Amino acid sequence: MNAELIAVGTELLLGEISNTDGQYISQKLAGLGINVFYHTVVGDNPARLEAVLRDAAKRSDIVITTGGLGPTYDDLTKELICRVFGKKLVLHEESLRRIEGFFADRGRPMTENNIKQAYLPEGCEVFSNDWGTAPGCAFKAENCVVAMLPGPPRECRPMTDLRLVPYLASLSDGVIYSDSVRICGMGESAVEALLRPIMENAVNPTVAPYCKLGEVELRVTAKAGSEAEAKALTAPVVEEIKSALGDVVYGVNVDSLEQAVVAGLRDAGLKLATAESCTGGLVSKRITDVSGSSEVFLGGVVSYANSVKQNVLGVKAETLASVGAVSAGTAEQMARGVCALTGADVGVSLTGIAGPGGGTEEKPVGLVYMGLCRGDKVTVTELRIGSRGRTRDDIRSQAATTALKAVLDEIRK
Amino acid sequence: MNAELIAVGTELLLGEISNTDGQYISQKLAGLGINVFYHTVVGDNPARLEAVLRDAAKRSDIVITTGGLGPTYDDLTKELICRVFGKKLVLHEESLRRIEGFFADRGRPMTENNIKQAYLPEGCEVFSNDWGTAPGCAFKAENCVVAMLPGPPRECRPMTDLRLVPYLASLSDGVIYSDSVRICGMGESAVEALLRPIMENAVNPTVAPYCKLGEVELRVTAKAGSEAEAKALTAPVVEEIKSALGDVVYGVNVDSLEQAVVAGLRDAGLKLATAESCTGGLVSKRITDVSGSSEVFLGGVVSYANSVKQNVLGVKAETLASVGAVSAGTAEQMARGVCALTGADVGVSLTGIAGPGGGTEEKPVGLVYMGLCRGDKVTVTELRIGSRGRTRDDIRSQAATTALKAVLDEIRK
Repeated sequence: MNAELIAVGTELLLGEISNTDGQYISQKLAGLGINVFYHTVVGDNPARLEAVLRDAAKRSDIVITTGGLGPTYDDLTKELICRVFGKKLVLHEESLRRIEGFFADRGRPMTENNIKQAYLPEGCEVFSNDWGTAPGCAFKAENCVVAMLPGPPRECRPMTDLRLVPYLASLSDGVIYSDSVRICGMGESAVEALLRPIMENAVNPTVAPYCKLGEVELRVTAKAGSEAEAKALTAPVVEEIKSALGDVVYGVNVDSLEQAVVAGLRDAGLKLATAESCTGGLVSKRITDVSGSSEVFLGGVVSYANSVKQNVLGVKAETLASVGAVSAGTAEQMARGVCALTGADVGVSLTGIAGPGGGTEEKPVGLVYMGLCRGDKVTVTELRIGSRGRTRDDIRSQAATTALKAVLDEIRK
Repeated sequence: MNAELIAVGTELLLGEISNTDGQYISQKLAGLGINVFYHTVVGDNPARLEAVLRDAAKRSDIVITTGGLGPTYDDLTKELICRVFGKKLVLHEESLRRIEGFFADRGRPMTENNIKQAYLPEGCEVFSNDWGTAPGCAFKAENCVVAMLPGPPRECRPMTDLRLVPYLASLSDGVIYSDSVRICGMGESAVEALLRPIMENAVNPTVAPYCKLGEVELRVTAKAGSEAEAKALTAPVVEEIKSALGDVVYGVNVDSLEQAVVAGLRDAGLKLATAESCTGGLVSKRITDVSGSSEVFLGGVVSYANSVKQNVLGVKAETLASVGAVSAGTAEQMARGVCALTGADVGVSLTGIAGPGGGTEEKPVGLVYMGLCRGDKVTVTELRIGSRGRTRDDIRSQAATTALKAVLDEIRK
């Protein structure tokens, strides 16, 4: 089965927003073993949208649209899909009541044009929208399956997970289940080299790698008659991967490294604090992205100026004078200092040169020292992130990721 | 003139990355007054890519591809474009020497397949790539203009700005120039309501709004015989907008709010420090995103736990006990405390409920107190960001943006 995604909206063509819906749905379809062959973005223009829909109907088994389900006259997706696939729009009473309730809840009047959103293709499966007004829907046409989702990502994402994916899975003659193995501290090519025997022989489950800066995700996906059978297929492969890669695997089916850090600290009953120079608060920002992080994260000091390193964290003036702010000594004293200041069990520090300016031959852009304090002991690691093709952002992100992974390794010891 | 963007790469269809090139180029084309009618994403599959190119050649005046210019066998964009548009690939000596130099610089051997990257369509305009190996190029075909750019955003973006945009501008019978007016603290609909008379009558220059959370950008774009003439058309409209909107305009032709803050502090000779609770370091992270921010930013304290608010920032125990951490009193003492601690001239603090948990009727999710300290004086503002349809991320971003804008207003007083 191959699928095509069509995003409808002039704002996409003006570059005001990126088609993140396309990316999100593609990931989920990959998880279902459905190949996506095309993404198309088209504006709120009836002739062009109709032509795109007709092409899609000819070439794809599954056509999924996002956007164009709003209440205004230029929201045309449903109307044109009905024209292309010979369907009639009929009022869906339940959706109308839901939309009325949505407005009543908010004490706002429902305008006439919102009624339009409750009209849906005759005989379709309705995707109730608990995150906005426009319902989605899906139906089987002659040669393909058609599904429509609202465009705003905060509606599209839960609608994808809780409506579209179960609908598409129900069309398949079995269950598809994925485990996600999260890796930090080893590059994609090294991961692939180590896992080649596993990956090459993988048919059911399949093993597919995804990369982001400083991290690799492996998706182990099996198809079987039931979820239990599918899990029985993925579990041994996940174990095989974990033992092949060792400690660089930081979690299975966890959302993010910061989530793993927060969960790890909670399990260990430990409190964390951060002392950041070059990352300027990025590590603490990422930890506090996790709701509930206040249970384990005390806080941190962004010691950008040397005076703050000295006066707040207690870095010695002689260290700053002799070896400088970007040094093992400073990193060590920052980590120790933030633990002393906050009473944290674990303290992590970063000081380095994020660039693009400020590098020297001896201390190039991308040189970062990381300190990790646990009780009396501080370990300092020199990171050479490198500046070739790396932006300031990349260097800061990579340093923060490395620090989060180091905290996780420490608390799991 | 209408354009179509074609992004080539299976990684886009797997959802590993989002088509940010498409967004970036679209924005730039909008600035040139070129309408983008379609974005298409297609994989590294010769038959499907060729079909997509043939459709584009039929329906668009300008066809721009990104990706598929790499050295490996599955990088096929150039070969298929040459087939579709009847062009021959010929070796471009200068590009070959540049690629050889690229490898020599890095002390790495150039593999045979990199030579492929120096082959370009006969008679094309070569877009030299100073950010990677693959050159881009453009040529005029029978009914359309075809341009190719490398896919990695860090190559595609400068290639768009410094190669593609000048090339397309040279095809036009005049110069297109845009001013960007950046607005923070007023929503898009309020901006539009105030500016309706200006926007409706705008033909040359045109005025177009773009939104992001907490900010609005207005692009004032003029077409004229020379850049000076175009600037003479935009300048009075920019002035008109500035006087209609007042202080919410934080800059013209500046990159970001944080950049304006850093520049403003530098001009005023002032040093800043931050005290963050709910934003967990996001404000300091954003300030230090700006290269050179160390000149004006001393650092900050992320006082997530009450103990850190008390022991590091000197918030009184009785304040925390009586009115709590999310209160005007705490925000005031945090801002005052971080100035005292670091010696900063200006201190900004944020304490609030980022959610999704932790809200009460009295203190709902989205309630944030912001303190701004300048010398002896502290001003506290209560923000009610609201939680309806807002994620934790949204609330934190909006609070950070409001704080940055408040700092800018303060230093510009």
